[in-house]
Amino acid sequence: MTLSLDPRRIGAVLDGRWAESRQLGRSLALDDATHLDPADDLETTRARTLEAVGLMARTGLPLMALPEALGGANAHAANVAGFEETVTASPSLQIKAGVQFGLFGGAILHLGNGDQHERWLRPAMTGELLGSFAMTEIGHGSDVAAIGTTATYAPETDEFVIDTPFAAATKEYIGNAARDARAAVVFAQLITAGVNHGVHAFLVRVRTDEGAPVAGVTFADDGYKGGLPGVDNGRVAFDSVRIPRTHLLDRYGAVAADGTYSSPIASPGRRFFTMLGTLVQGRVSLDGAAVVASKLALDIAVRYGHERRQFTTADEITETTLMDYQQHQRRLMPALAAVYASALAHEKLLASFDEVFSGADDSEENRALLETRAAAFKADSTWLALDVIQECREACGGAGFMAENRLVGLRADLDVYVTFEGDNTVLLQLAAKRILGDYAKEFAQIDVGGVARFIGTQAAEHSLYRTGLANAGLAISDAFTRGLSDRRIRSGRLQRSLLETRLEVMVSELAGDLRPATRMNQADAAALFNSRQHELIEMGRAYVELEKWKALDEAMRDQTDPDQAKVFRRLRDTYGLSLIEKHMSWHLMYGRLPMSRARQLPDTLNRLCAKLAADSLDLVEAFGYTDEHRRATIATGIEARRQREAAEHYRHARARRDFPVAEKHLRRADTA
Amino acid sequence: MTLSLDPRRIGAVLDGRWAESRQLGRSLALDDATHLDPADDLETTRARTLEAVGLMARTGLPLMALPEALGGANAHAANVAGFEETVTASPSLQIKAGVQFGLFGGAILHLGNGDQHERWLRPAMTGELLGSFAMTEIGHGSDVAAIGTTATYAPETDEFVIDTPFAAATKEYIGNAARDARAAVVFAQLITAGVNHGVHAFLVRVRTDEGAPVAGVTFADDGYKGGLPGVDNGRVAFDSVRIPRTHLLDRYGAVAADGTYSSPIASPGRRFFTMLGTLVQGRVSLDGAAVVASKLALDIAVRYGHERRQFTTADEITETTLMDYQQHQRRLMPALAAVYASALAHEKLLASFDEVFSGADDSEENRALLETRAAAFKADSTWLALDVIQECREACGGAGFMAENRLVGLRADLDVYVTFEGDNTVLLQLAAKRILGDYAKEFAQIDVGGVARFIGTQAAEHSLYRTGLANAGLAISDAFTRGLSDRRIRSGRLQRSLLETRLEVMVSELAGDLRPATRMNQADAAALFNSRQHELIEMGRAYVELEKWKALDEAMRDQTDPDQAKVFRRLRDTYGLSLIEKHMSWHLMYGRLPMSRARQLPDTLNRLCAKLAADSLDLVEAFGYTDEHRRATIATGIEARRQREAAEHYRHARARRDFPVAEKHLRRADTA
Repeated sequence: MTLSLDPRRIGAVLDGRWAESRQLGRSLALDDATHLDPADDLETTRARTLEAVGLMARTGLPLMALPEALGGANAHAANVAGFEETVTASPSLQIKAGVQFGLFGGAILHLGNGDQHERWLRPAMTGELLGSFAMTEIGHGSDVAAIGTTATYAPETDEFVIDTPFAAATKEYIGNAARDARAAVVFAQLITAGVNHGVHAFLVRVRTDEGAPVAGVTFADDGYKGGLPGVDNGRVAFDSVRIPRTHLLDRYGAVAADGTYSSPIASPGRRFFTMLGTLVQGRVSLDGAAVVASKLALDIAVRYGHERRQFTTADEITETTLMDYQQHQRRLMPALAAVYASALAHEKLLASFDEVFSGADDSEENRALLETRAAAFKADSTWLALDVIQECREACGGAGFMAENRLVGLRADLDVYVTFEGDNTVLLQLAAKRILGDYAKEFAQIDVGGVARFIGTQAAEHSLYRTGLANAGLAISDAFTRGLSDRRIRSGRLQRSLLETRLEVMVSELAGDLRPATRMNQADAAALFNSRQHELIEMGRAYVELEKWKALDEAMRDQTDPDQAKVFRRLRDTYGLSLIEKHMSWHLMYGRLPMSRARQLPDTLNRLCAKLAADSLDLVEAFGYTDEHRRATIATGIEARRQREAAEHYRHARARRDFPVAEKHLRRADTA
Repeated sequence: MTLSLDPRRIGAVLDGRWAESRQLGRSLALDDATHLDPADDLETTRARTLEAVGLMARTGLPLMALPEALGGANAHAANVAGFEETVTASPSLQIKAGVQFGLFGGAILHLGNGDQHERWLRPAMTGELLGSFAMTEIGHGSDVAAIGTTATYAPETDEFVIDTPFAAATKEYIGNAARDARAAVVFAQLITAGVNHGVHAFLVRVRTDEGAPVAGVTFADDGYKGGLPGVDNGRVAFDSVRIPRTHLLDRYGAVAADGTYSSPIASPGRRFFTMLGTLVQGRVSLDGAAVVASKLALDIAVRYGHERRQFTTADEITETTLMDYQQHQRRLMPALAAVYASALAHEKLLASFDEVFSGADDSEENRALLETRAAAFKADSTWLALDVIQECREACGGAGFMAENRLVGLRADLDVYVTFEGDNTVLLQLAAKRILGDYAKEFAQIDVGGVARFIGTQAAEHSLYRTGLANAGLAISDAFTRGLSDRRIRSGRLQRSLLETRLEVMVSELAGDLRPATRMNQADAAALFNSRQHELIEMGRAYVELEKWKALDEAMRDQTDPDQAKVFRRLRDTYGLSLIEKHMSWHLMYGRLPMSRARQLPDTLNRLCAKLAADSLDLVEAFGYTDEHRRATIATGIEARRQREAAEHYRHARARRDFPVAEKHLRRADTA
């Protein structure tokens, strides 16, 4: 039944162009110093995580993203790919390192000028200057434009004065703030000469080298959270904190000594979104990190599922392996297929990220596509990770709940990924709004609802950015022809057609429903948008699902080894049919799938899952992780050893003369 | 828009017959000593939880379940209802108390004889004798019949010898074992005179009064888990541990001094399931505890959702309340309706539990119905709790991830509820198998697949036990008539018909598919059952969903106050339409709902959610919890206070002459 597969060859497909960098990231997890111990108290855990950040800095990964002039390699995707893999060491390390190198360092890199790069970039990327990224406030998370912190220019001293004017403007959930940060990139409303020029970033010294708060800076510790114990999140408030004018990261907005403001981007809205857009790396890397965490969880649960047995079924002695149960297959195999699809889609995201930031193709069109995809992929992959890890934890029963088997820790740590770096529901709206703007130009400009704030004006100048939906709905292809055989439900063309048609119709219907908003007053337009918010978000999901399916489909086509091609086809079909099953009522209601064919889908999916299950050990082996990455007792073969011991015991016992007869056998004998 | 509702009157409906006892359980949470502090280390947390168990014993709740002769009140449901509410203090307390009073004490009560009651029941129920319930082993969780621990009768000393013959037979995940238990009810294969009479329960002293392990007993600490830090789970192994013959809890199987075995139940299978059946209280109380946890989470998220604002939409100054966003309503309102349905269904479960255990109606038929419902409800409610708590945590954004806002702790603690006291997937199969046996007699006897082990022979003698499905599929009512108006999608008759028909058709289809198994050899029959396992589990879910819908529908009919009746109707419709939407493809494929009507369902549901959202503060107030129960900073009004302060600040600032103009307004002025 099983195919002849080479996990290393499959792994090479998954690891993709930046495999070497992934290996570097994974190698960190081989060092015990990067692992956390649940027995440690909070401060010990934080200290340990900081040390691990130091170890990561020493790999040189963070420096890779720097320009060549600063000793870097301008290698953005390589940096991110390696960084994502640090989840195998611990998500706390990934996030704390992400704050330090990706957010703090990244903001200096993308928003700062050459002098600022010279001064701060290397110390940031080597971990010498520990920093925070102080954007979110208690009162405003998703709506960054509305933050309350102010940076008022004082020409008499050539300084900015940073203030927290009310409690809701206190910076909140700031990583590195509770303990380690000495500096912070602080986002604040830039005010000069009586004008508020909107949100800009400032480098602010917040603690002395020895760790004492700088005068005017107040910290509070967020303390215990649902996960990520190694990350010291906290609150920061500013009371007339003065910083030199040259601490404004002024790539997109500068203030002269006399207080004159200037910017290469005239429109304040466009400027704001351009600045935020440079920070897309966070979302890109969370997409990849979520995939890594999902892989680890599946790796553990699939291995255990192939060893663990429960209940005799076929005969009275041999117990059945969990992985042989249909429901177990249905729990884990669609998850496995979705993780393969997500990994391959992420590889494409990384490629476009690299194009934009290396300068190979930093067209506005490509940037917009990158931002749309990063938002949508991050939302889908982080939710997927929570679902997959939880399914894995439950599939391992009580053992799954033990910290030593890793799954509960991964679940707890990944939880916040779905709401940080952009709340997932907001991110899907962002993507959906962009797709809508792509489809029909008038939506690119509309500015109602929270969504619009995120979209800004950037997309307006490009009515089409490769989502390929410009003519959606106008010529919906009639993919389904009567008389398709049972096997044809697995046809790739049919899957693609169903997924594409659904997206296209959702987009054109939404466009039709929302078009009146362009002629309404703001309140009515907002109400109309709100009445379709749920549908808008679903459309955003339909977009990601199609993108992920296409990535898996492409990878399948690239395979030359017959068995490897076969297993990729099964993965694609399992992912595709899972999606079609999930949205079956839609396909039926819109007449894309006849009832008779739809009824056969569940059984087809059952059979696919059974086939995948047979090869699932190879498919998780392909992830390239070892016992040192998994660090889960139940995934080490211990269960099979215990079962062998028990089986031996019974075998010997049955051979003994005094082995007690089971009462039920005795009764059968009586009756006979 | 809002109705005129009295939360206390609604609360009375929810709290039901055992409201007084619920108040008693809730009152425990008013004592700080019952709360856990995430800053405490594991041993402090355990010690604190043990103290809280003592406080609970002092309320007298556990004694209520005892017979009147032993100073109890024979009040089973009252005991359980009060016990469930201790989740508001902490789930660790609920579970540790559950182990002590429900499992350890309950096993003595239900499996022990009068002498044993005299000796051990009061000490168990007052917490004087701390005990474990040692059933699960490393090698066998769901399949209790296959446990490896042996209790061999030694007539020469009138003792049983308890042994763990191999590592997989080590008792595992045993609550109270790591630290506190002095005694344990140990489940083991009873062997006497060369015959194994199957699993029986024994009271075993495991530690001295001072806490040292008794000779032959070895403990290991399970240490850190995904939640429930206050419960000291551990492993227990036995090496020739001798206990007096009188320590066999012998209600269903006794051994005379000469080693002769006797039992009131001749069939070993039937005996085993009768013994396990007496322990149904655990599942009943987890169903209720899951409802309590879900209520707490919704209480927190709904309050925050009514205060928190993000993004201006209708005008440029006023930000929109989260609860006014359609997606926010869609996230929380179906959850609220499902929790109402679950609470009301649980009340019915408690009533049947009370009937059976008080002796008011302990017919085998009623017992079987109770067991089926307890299994199915527990599975559905515990999964619902995880979904609801997670949705609430995400709906509160980053604040939801902070331990001080309670949601992540509840989520972590409730996690294991879905796999303990019966893994949810196994429990749903149990329920489904019973329903199938009810529908078609031949299935009551069939014994293939893990499922069958759970069903035993008990149901065989009663082909119908009130599930009302005896003739399902034979006369499927044609509920749908063309021309129903838009409002009719909310018709209760239509909802009931759709939910009932789905269950009936699933049952009759499964019966048809599985019937050949009765004539197959064991291996083929097992394979056939396995090929329908996914469907079988879905059918079990369809059963619970219908039961819960009916409970909400009944409660709706009981309401006399017009506005209260209206809100219950909205809750019922929201729950019903959510279920119909979830299974829409089924209803379409089986021609129960025309496409045109189906397409209108999402909008109807959107409107219902908007209406419920308007009254949602009253609906969570009706849960009867206070700030002391919620203990979540964000649910205290702090967010509204911060927003008022910020709004005041801006109001004053705008009035000042030197308030900085926004650059975008300046530009507009330039252009004008």
